[in-house]
Amino acid sequence: MCQLLGMNGNTPTDIMFSFTGFATRAEEHRDGFGIAFFEGAGLRLFVDAQSARHSPVAELVQNYPIRSDHVIAHIRKATQGRVALENTHPFVRELWGRYWVFAHNGNLTGYAPRLHASFHPVGDTDSELAFCWLMQELAKAHASLPPVAELTATLRELVPQIAAHGTFNFMLSQGEALWAHCSTKLTYLVRQHPFREARLQDGDISVDFSRLTTPSDRVAVIVTEPLTRDEPWVDFAPGELKVFVAGEPLAV
Amino acid sequence: MCQLLGMNGNTPTDIMFSFTGFATRAEEHRDGFGIAFFEGAGLRLFVDAQSARHSPVAELVQNYPIRSDHVIAHIRKATQGRVALENTHPFVRELWGRYWVFAHNGNLTGYAPRLHASFHPVGDTDSELAFCWLMQELAKAHASLPPVAELTATLRELVPQIAAHGTFNFMLSQGEALWAHCSTKLTYLVRQHPFREARLQDGDISVDFSRLTTPSDRVAVIVTEPLTRDEPWVDFAPGELKVFVAGEPLAV
Repeated sequence: MCQLLGMNGNTPTDIMFSFTGFATRAEEHRDGFGIAFFEGAGLRLFVDAQSARHSPVAELVQNYPIRSDHVIAHIRKATQGRVALENTHPFVRELWGRYWVFAHNGNLTGYAPRLHASFHPVGDTDSELAFCWLMQELAKAHASLPPVAELTATLRELVPQIAAHGTFNFMLSQGEALWAHCSTKLTYLVRQHPFREARLQDGDISVDFSRLTTPSDRVAVIVTEPLTRDEPWVDFAPGELKVFVAGEPLAV
Repeated sequence: MCQLLGMNGNTPTDIMFSFTGFATRAEEHRDGFGIAFFEGAGLRLFVDAQSARHSPVAELVQNYPIRSDHVIAHIRKATQGRVALENTHPFVRELWGRYWVFAHNGNLTGYAPRLHASFHPVGDTDSELAFCWLMQELAKAHASLPPVAELTATLRELVPQIAAHGTFNFMLSQGEALWAHCSTKLTYLVRQHPFREARLQDGDISVDFSRLTTPSDRVAVIVTEPLTRDEPWVDFAPGELKVFVAGEPLAV
């Protein structure tokens, strides 16, 4: 199984601390990694078909404080599809003049949707196929970019149709909101004032967020398994789809 | 004006030498840079809204021997569109299950094509607009990925319609061929056996390609202005569209 990491903040935030913790898990998820950063409508996507433990690209990401309000990262242990760059998450498509980013943890079986419109997989994973179908169906449901609440309502209709085929933990963002769906395993945390110190679960690194933030900052971190030992992580329920805007889950 | 660099080889080749020469020109093209590498159907895209002279991302690209058969790079001096990540070339879209990469040098005026299908700009440059229109028209002209010669014939019909609006030097690739169009300035070179030493136009760096290649290697380098002093660069004619496959221009 792969692992997912997402970040959504109310101010551009760097992900170096969380990504460092996340990347230490890459030893057993050695079939590639990827990370997408939104900067406004713009996007940076770093992908590599080698382990995040050994990739020069991952080293850049850990040392270069890219500040972003929406981040989606993925480390891969191949279940379907060869180990190749075109099978490395996150995947990106453009819809309604926005970039959409998608990463998946899980495995779909007997999943063969009809793709009759403008979105087709480049690689051969179940994940990219599911993403293309989601994009196709969103494009059919709305003529132009709708508000987040409407998009969420449409996704609540679409997602169970995919999830019926297997494990479908995923993250999706268009740079305005971040949707996270849990089939089996996903947890999140909202960091906000008063900030304090946190220690990584997977290493000896700690960071004192009170020194790096202002009282108005707020950031949600969503991940397959808790990254830190001493923070109040909240597990998703199976089948739950949450949408994060400005660093917190919306009640929609 | 911006500058363009493209590479098309018959074997995966690293672009460190050419990109180093290209990046030294970034002082006067400081509004961002980008470089896209195909690895099979997969794609790595590095973009930054700061100059390639100072960007940590550009440093990674210069020091990390990414081997690719198709590369498109761009350094930007903004003419239309703000200095922002979403306005940084190359641009990427998916069509027929392939990634398409596009970069433009020039300026289009009074260009407002009707976009009625699935490709819309994320940023606000004339370049991304032209790319979206090209993708739309290619999608209308062919039901699935056609052979390179057919794509070239379609592009020969489409490109003059854009070029009528101004300067339209561009490079386009879907990972199988690289198309380069010259409005005003573009030059190319085929490096092949017998390989020899070449010295960068913009620096004191030289490289002896005979030590880095095998006799069957062949690579075409296409660029706004010659990168080296001692190689036989061939200028494009204004209005000329060339297509490169396996390291040489096709006679189509």
